[in-house]
Amino acid sequence: MPLYGSYPFSVEPFSEDFTGRLSWGVLGNWLLRCASLHAGQCGFGFEQMKQTNHVWVLSRLVVDLKQMPATGNAFQIDTWVSKVYRQFTDRMFSVSTTDGRPLGSAFSTWALIDLDSRQPLELSKVSEGGISHFLYERNLDIKGASRVRVKADVPVHSLKTGYSDLDINGHVNSIRYLQMSLDLFSDYICREGHAVYRVELSYAAETYCGETLLFFTDGIQEDRAQIDIRKSNGGTVAKVALLFQTVNS
Amino acid sequence: MPLYGSYPFSVEPFSEDFTGRLSWGVLGNWLLRCASLHAGQCGFGFEQMKQTNHVWVLSRLVVDLKQMPATGNAFQIDTWVSKVYRQFTDRMFSVSTTDGRPLGSAFSTWALIDLDSRQPLELSKVSEGGISHFLYERNLDIKGASRVRVKADVPVHSLKTGYSDLDINGHVNSIRYLQMSLDLFSDYICREGHAVYRVELSYAAETYCGETLLFFTDGIQEDRAQIDIRKSNGGTVAKVALLFQTVNS
Repeated sequence: MPLYGSYPFSVEPFSEDFTGRLSWGVLGNWLLRCASLHAGQCGFGFEQMKQTNHVWVLSRLVVDLKQMPATGNAFQIDTWVSKVYRQFTDRMFSVSTTDGRPLGSAFSTWALIDLDSRQPLELSKVSEGGISHFLYERNLDIKGASRVRVKADVPVHSLKTGYSDLDINGHVNSIRYLQMSLDLFSDYICREGHAVYRVELSYAAETYCGETLLFFTDGIQEDRAQIDIRKSNGGTVAKVALLFQTVNS
Repeated sequence: MPLYGSYPFSVEPFSEDFTGRLSWGVLGNWLLRCASLHAGQCGFGFEQMKQTNHVWVLSRLVVDLKQMPATGNAFQIDTWVSKVYRQFTDRMFSVSTTDGRPLGSAFSTWALIDLDSRQPLELSKVSEGGISHFLYERNLDIKGASRVRVKADVPVHSLKTGYSDLDINGHVNSIRYLQMSLDLFSDYICREGHAVYRVELSYAAETYCGETLLFFTDGIQEDRAQIDIRKSNGGTVAKVALLFQTVNS
């Protein structure tokens, strides 16, 4: 059984950002695609879980990639399940060139939600404990996420979610929060020569079509920006940390 | 020489919209990707044109697709150049299942811009008239675009462009205007059971990072919405028509 999923990609035209390198939005969705494909191959993917009225929900995503592959570059994403603990499971990702040179890594934490009760399931009871048969051990050099604390109490931006933000569940796609957060620092990225090399996202609630999102941030401190994305009732939807490096042009 | 480019795709997880079918945003970018790949194979792609300080600019895009392929479905996009006339060239697209059943079609009109003068080139003089050696004749059943005229003089929405909107040229990606336009009708699409089956876009100017876009529309009339996207100085950036059909759920 495929303990280890390995998926080839190539940076095609219209998947790049303004620098000609793979955009964070496309990379993020490709990571989630690999998670979904590999879970499906293991027997606990989106379609299989739907049959029992369950859906995977992303709780945390950390991606660390010092340099994005550029237009035309081939690369691969390897993914595996590293841990199952109570209501959560960790899935790791390694991003490398096709000849094995590491480009970066990522980890994600998922919960399985019952669509009626909206409660997370005890994962040892799902598929007769089947998920834990798919654990794979491989050391991955990626730091854990720091806590995101934002002091600002006035939003720097707000937006209403729409059709293009939604995923197949009808919720705002997890990666859209990353894109919206990056867009708060467009000048810093596009005009002032900085690139994001690491992102940390934690997800607290789902957003539906037509909801208003408020963005709170204290700005950039020591090459790190923290964003608290809240609904208009004040509840946090997602917390995001972006880590910047200066680009040598 | 490859007069005819044929590119396989499959609707992978995280390329769908909330209905589980390929999203308009992803389809749009895949069409542009095919255009770019095929132009590259013919010798007049993005990289080749960059060497002479020229860049292809999309002037018009019409896509007609009665039903989007669904998750897991394989399909292909065929593309070819159908016409070269003065400063413009037409490129056609046929979208079909891998066993040849037509799903829809598209056409696009492009100009080649000199990056210094910002003027379009006479295409018969480019690559020693080489582009016209790549003309291919195939009948495609797709209606021309109607004129978009919007009477409203108060914008229904405005937004500031950011990092995630940009393409490799540093301009707002052509397909983002489609996504932004679709988002104006999110309720109609997501709650009231309508799907877009045809889009018509014409592009008048480029937008850079940090510019404000204003959206003008008279709403939906006879299953058609028209949107005029303008800069804050009043100049039109793009005009968009969306054609809706009722979804049988």
